[in-house]
Amino acid sequence: MNDLFLRVCRGEAVERPPVWLMRQAGRYLPEYRAIRSGVSFLELCKSSELAAKVSLQPIDILGVDAAIVFADILIVPDAMGVELRFEKGDGPSFPTPIRNRDDIARLRHPDVEATLGYVFSTLRVLRAELDGRVPLIGFAGSPWTLAAYVVEGGVSTAFPRLLAWSYEDPSAVVTLLERLADTTIDYLRGQVEAGAQALQIFDTWGGLLSAERWRSLALPSMQRILESIPAGVPRILYLRNGGHLLEVLADLPVEVLSVDWRVPLDEVRRSCSSVPVLQGNLDPCTLLAPIEVIERETARVLEQGSGGGHIVNLGHGILPQTPVEHAKAFVRFAQGGGSRLVAKPADAALPNH
Amino acid sequence: MNDLFLRVCRGEAVERPPVWLMRQAGRYLPEYRAIRSGVSFLELCKSSELAAKVSLQPIDILGVDAAIVFADILIVPDAMGVELRFEKGDGPSFPTPIRNRDDIARLRHPDVEATLGYVFSTLRVLRAELDGRVPLIGFAGSPWTLAAYVVEGGVSTAFPRLLAWSYEDPSAVVTLLERLADTTIDYLRGQVEAGAQALQIFDTWGGLLSAERWRSLALPSMQRILESIPAGVPRILYLRNGGHLLEVLADLPVEVLSVDWRVPLDEVRRSCSSVPVLQGNLDPCTLLAPIEVIERETARVLEQGSGGGHIVNLGHGILPQTPVEHAKAFVRFAQGGGSRLVAKPADAALPNH
Repeated sequence: MNDLFLRVCRGEAVERPPVWLMRQAGRYLPEYRAIRSGVSFLELCKSSELAAKVSLQPIDILGVDAAIVFADILIVPDAMGVELRFEKGDGPSFPTPIRNRDDIARLRHPDVEATLGYVFSTLRVLRAELDGRVPLIGFAGSPWTLAAYVVEGGVSTAFPRLLAWSYEDPSAVVTLLERLADTTIDYLRGQVEAGAQALQIFDTWGGLLSAERWRSLALPSMQRILESIPAGVPRILYLRNGGHLLEVLADLPVEVLSVDWRVPLDEVRRSCSSVPVLQGNLDPCTLLAPIEVIERETARVLEQGSGGGHIVNLGHGILPQTPVEHAKAFVRFAQGGGSRLVAKPADAALPNH
Repeated sequence: MNDLFLRVCRGEAVERPPVWLMRQAGRYLPEYRAIRSGVSFLELCKSSELAAKVSLQPIDILGVDAAIVFADILIVPDAMGVELRFEKGDGPSFPTPIRNRDDIARLRHPDVEATLGYVFSTLRVLRAELDGRVPLIGFAGSPWTLAAYVVEGGVSTAFPRLLAWSYEDPSAVVTLLERLADTTIDYLRGQVEAGAQALQIFDTWGGLLSAERWRSLALPSMQRILESIPAGVPRILYLRNGGHLLEVLADLPVEVLSVDWRVPLDEVRRSCSSVPVLQGNLDPCTLLAPIEVIERETARVLEQGSGGGHIVNLGHGILPQTPVEHAKAFVRFAQGGGSRLVAKPADAALPNH
């Protein structure tokens, strides 16, 4: 029974920081690819048996300190009536995107048990199969991030349609975010009832906004979601590319703030001193380098995170091309007290200039 | 004779801030597409007559206060022996990427007149055709940004190969950056001799690095390039996604710092008080919204930039889907003293929460 992760989330002192990896149930694992080869991505999400199986793989293979349910953030708008497709070789797409107030009005506020109950089933299967081995994390996308995809109609690097709309008619965009939040709130409550012991909100694209615009656009629905989560369930907010947003984040009602690799944890700790626990933030590209480099960089993350509660993780999802042995080395090193090693600065090997 | 742009760069007080747009010679212009339809992208770069023609289009059509030579940052590694291809419909690719020290050793230090002389010809044609109408800007990519492409072998959103290599063997990466800088220095000097009156360095991907890593990896070659530029030629550094790097940028020997739309100019001015002039930073997505929104947001940029020398620009290149009338409205409004209008906060239209 390993409850390190939950104890850190509750602000308790622990013997070592727990470790897990964003997207740990994923394509870098041959065992995942074997299951995925027989079904489509959405079939895998919707089969509670298979989804539970791939969620458990990183616990067995890497020995991480937490499980996260296998699902996709984009199933929430799908449940609201914005049909989601994953075409072979392409990313996700929404053939009927949300582009105006009429589109928003057509959004359903669905019964989450009827539309997203398969995730709740996966969670129940997982809690039973984990049997207390490690805690189980549920998750959802932030309204802003979901909106980026449903307005664009698919993936993008800059999501110009949502951004243009947010300049043109910010109150329509806020309405869309609130509608997405309504369903997300039900969905996360359902996840807790089904056994999720902590919840992570992924704000992958909030970093496209300036701090002022994040505050006026993305914050209200985010705040409402965070406040709706039942007391006692730790709330983790992941924000990619948010170095310029630290000031806004400082006041959010979260137990854990998860940041990407660009901002050192000790600096985040200073800027967001009201957030008790930080999560992160090894650059996922580090796991492509040799194991001694992974150890050196992990030691640095442990050192930078050592000033308070710390959950070791990557700064973004693990890359599909990551060698499994490298992911294992990261977990093993982080769990084995790497923090007692002296972190060598990365530029130790640099020539003089 | 409009030399507003150069006067601002030199720190002189001016009657109004000058305005130009990154990627102003580009696909959003039907006149550009007409020329481009007859030739490949690289043919267009290499034909001084056509390249000069498209460089002049935004001067005639939008009435911007500066011209920038039409070229591509990736022709520099191509000149060094890393063959560059633009396949139809795809982005740029390097079929023989740079992945190890042997690859670095194979890089040529080319005679820039022989390999990149077509850009110098374009500049000479442009100076003659402009005949002093507006100043002419030359440019190059930063070594880190060029390295991102040549190591990856093409485009990417995260450039994992360069990042992994930079963790594994930072001194090899620094060597690569120095080799890229050697040619860039010759190239920029050639541009000045051919008539470029200011130089902009595009660091599009430096924002993938933490401040500490930007300082140890990207800074030395950048600094050497900036210091090599002949006295009296204004140096502009553009950094995308660099809100977390402001502290490092503050000490760079540049006359103008160009930032993206995520960081308000008044905040950048406070963080980088030693940089005399700021350039930017309207979100290019704004130009997809109606003209009254463009005017409101431009007024805000003018207001935020008003505390010192300011060159009005976008925060990144203009999007290909931008209506030409919207680009014109931006230029017209910025030139027409929009700053005297009261900037309405973007959230004025937001409902209460």
